[in-house]
This record gives sequence, C-alpha cells and structure tokens, in this order.
Amino acid sequence: MPGQVQSIARAAAILRLLAGGSGRLGLLEIARSLDLPKGTAHGIVRTLQDVGFVEQDKTSGKYQLGAALLHLGTSYLDVNELRSRSINWADPLAARSGEAVRIGTLLQDRVLVVHHVFRPDDTLQTLDVGALLPPHATALGKVLLAYETGVFSGNLEPYTRRTLASPRTLARALAAIREAGWGADIEEMTIGEAGIAAPIRGYGGLVVGAIGISGPVERVCDAHGRPDTSLVAYVRDAARAVSRDLGGRVYDLSP
Amino acid sequence: MPGQVQSIARAAAILRLLAGGSGRLGLLEIARSLDLPKGTAHGIVRTLQDVGFVEQDKTSGKYQLGAALLHLGTSYLDVNELRSRSINWADPLAARSGEAVRIGTLLQDRVLVVHHVFRPDDTLQTLDVGALLPPHATALGKVLLAYETGVFSGNLEPYTRRTLASPRTLARALAAIREAGWGADIEEMTIGEAGIAAPIRGYGGLVVGAIGISGPVERVCDAHGRPDTSLVAYVRDAARAVSRDLGGRVYDLSP
Repeated sequence: MPGQVQSIARAAAILRLLAGGSGRLGLLEIARSLDLPKGTAHGIVRTLQDVGFVEQDKTSGKYQLGAALLHLGTSYLDVNELRSRSINWADPLAARSGEAVRIGTLLQDRVLVVHHVFRPDDTLQTLDVGALLPPHATALGKVLLAYETGVFSGNLEPYTRRTLASPRTLARALAAIREAGWGADIEEMTIGEAGIAAPIRGYGGLVVGAIGISGPVERVCDAHGRPDTSLVAYVRDAARAVSRDLGGRVYDLSP
Repeated sequence: MPGQVQSIARAAAILRLLAGGSGRLGLLEIARSLDLPKGTAHGIVRTLQDVGFVEQDKTSGKYQLGAALLHLGTSYLDVNELRSRSINWADPLAARSGEAVRIGTLLQDRVLVVHHVFRPDDTLQTLDVGALLPPHATALGKVLLAYETGVFSGNLEPYTRRTLASPRTLARALAAIREAGWGADIEEMTIGEAGIAAPIRGYGGLVVGAIGISGPVERVCDAHGRPDTSLVAYVRDAARAVSRDLGGRVYDLSP
C-alpha cells in the first residue's frame, strides 16, 4: 500500500481552510494556519489556481475557492447513488408530511446534506444541499451516529438548552434510536424547530444515510410535545423505500 | 515563482476524469487514461480517498468522486460574489420574463452555471447549477466569449443545424454581440429553445459573467423569429443592475 502523497494532503487542507471561515485568505495566513513555509504554501496554491480549484481576488490578492470545485461537487451528486435513489421518495414525503425533507450522510463527523426538498408552501427557504450540519443536534445526525461503529469525536456544541451536549446523554439517545429505529430532535438545534429521521440502509444492511423532515415544533410534535406518530410513520416508510431501492435488506423489525 | 506541484496537477486530472464519463473508474482505467504508472496512480487515489475527494465503491472496487467535494463546491458558491450579487436580480427577471434565468461564468472554455432560477410555472425542471454548457451554442456563452481576450479554442460541436459551428461564423456573431451589447441563441443548442443574454461587468468594467433567460422559441422570439424586444430589455436591465452592484461601471452605451 503506498503512503499519502504529502502535497495532495496539504492541498486538501488548504481547500478545507478556504471553505471555512471568511472564505478569503492571504498567502501568509494560509501558510501560518497550516504551519507551512511560505514558499511551500505558494507552490501548492499556485498549482491549485492553475487547475481552477482556487481563484485569486484581483483587488485584494487574497485566495478563495475556485469554480472548478462547483462542477466537481455537482458531478459528485450526479453519481451519488444515495441521492439518486432517494429523490423519488423525498418528494412524496414532503407532500405527505407538509414539511421540508433532507437526506444526509456522514462526512468527517458532520452531516452532509445531499438532497433537500423545500417545505411545500410559499415560504422563503434556502437550499441546504452541500451544507454540513452538527450531527449531535439534528435528527438526521443522531440517526447516522446511532449506527456508526466509531465513537463520535466531534464537538458537542450546545445550540439551545435542549442540545445533547454531554457524551453520556448523547450515548443514551443513540441507544434509544437503535432500539426504536428512528430519531428526533426537538428544539435541539433551533428554538421552535423539530425534526424526525430514519436510517437508510444500503447493500448488506449497512446504514449509508438518513432521511428526515424538519419544521415548526408545533406541527412536527403532538400536544404532549412528542413527535407526531403519523409523521414518524411517513419518515420510516420513506427510509424503507429508499433502502429497498438501494438493495439494502430492511433489518428493522421494530413495529 | 514556484512551478507546478506535479502530484497536485495529477490529482486534479484524476478528479476531472471521474467527473466526466460514467463517473466510476477502476485503478487501471485511471492509470491508463492519464498515462501514469499504476503505483503512482494508486498513491494519488489513496490520498484523495483519505481526504474525502474520492470514494471507493465497496462492491465493484471502482473509484468515484467523494462527498467532501460537494461541500467545497457549495462553499465556492457562498463566497462567489457574482452569484451573491445576482440573486436579487435573477428572481425579478424570471418573474418579468416568465422564463428560466441562468447566470454563468467561463471555466476552461465552457460556461459554468452559478445560479439558476426556474421558469415560474409548474413544469418539471432540473437545477443547472454546477453544469457546464457549450459556449458557442448558448446565448450566455456567446456573450462571455464576445468579451474574452483570448481566442476560443474549444470544440465547435454542432448541436443543431443552426449551431455556429465554424470559427468564422462564430467570430462574426461575437463581433455583433460586442456591437449590440447583448446576444441570443435561437435553436442553436436545442430545437425549439431560444435564449437571450447580456454581460455582467465587475470592478474596472471587465466582463465577469453573463445573465440570460431561455425558453420556448415561440415565446422568446417574435413573429419574425427575432428575439422579443421587451425580453431583451428585461435581460439588459438585469445585467446592468448586477453590474452596478458589483461596482462595475456600465460601459455599454448602445441604445
């Protein structure tokens, strides 16, 4: 097995750096952040610029992500089987539930949204595809973590008073999700918002993603503040349908 | 000035290769396509896999683009000033014209769509953001080429009988666009479809993008088969508005 090619790993680190924070950085800031000699950083950035992964702002001389990445990103979506199999089931789920639908998969301790169907009303909504969500504070993320083998090493940032911000409460919640076969977040990320999600299984029964709805807590939850049982059923139906399409045996035997 | 870092340039070539064609390739296919020794290709692919830019299909062992690219691609959109300044003007243009609106910029001899507003009706439409369009066969692309300094070296593939497929007819059309300050394509890419586009100017008056509408030829063109003059005015108004927001002096003095 060959080892890592150092310059490629460094190039990826520079791209991640530019994707975070303000989005525009000078060469010195890049070199310092990654603890690289300025000349080394310059060589990498110039090559990234040549291939269109980085662009230099003419006025400030600062670097930002380049246009070629957008095409690679959407090309990823085109071959992403989780997304292509989910699309047919996400629209009916949005229609039945009346809420926004998102499909996510884990990417480096965060939830990457690979598909998003807007809530079927006329409210202004922003497309979340490509966004990274905190897994411990979202139904999608908790469902994904529940079926991960490794221990979650990400940051348990408290977004609201209800966020599961300690490893112990999170572990308990994940065990409950494995037991029930679905999960919810109730005002754990945003006050007034709740979500319900269920796992999508691929070939061999492995969990490869999650599908979920999110919306105002008074619509997603019942009078007792618990996730609405019909909505839970809709989400689980959709998750099973996608799993079947992905060739995943639906192991989930809970009622 | 440092030179190119060879392994990064090769890594980018592998990603471009995976973005084209079928989307999934074996190691040997990758090595052969790029004329690399198998061991070299393996080291690069493994590193790309470590950083999430490439994923390996468990069943076939083939490689495909990875999830981390999606996040980088949408992060590019977040910092893209052309897109953020255009968004406010694209929706009103779609509403006034009744047609789909796209905003594009040149990327390696093709038009990269950075924003897309669906035609305001209930027809099924696919989001084109991240797609690459042929510049010689689209209004957006011809407008972008008209203000490029270099000569277009891309492929002049004939999509229809009306595609400008010779360098001479294309050069003549580009000169006419510079003269008029806007451009159109009438069934040059798809039979039955037409488009109108105008340049977006950034700081210093440089053309940094184009905004355009596209739709059925019988709506976009008048009874004489020429682009509808009110639609042309709407597109040019929008282009000027975006240019102003980008701090670009509006040099265009034609009526």
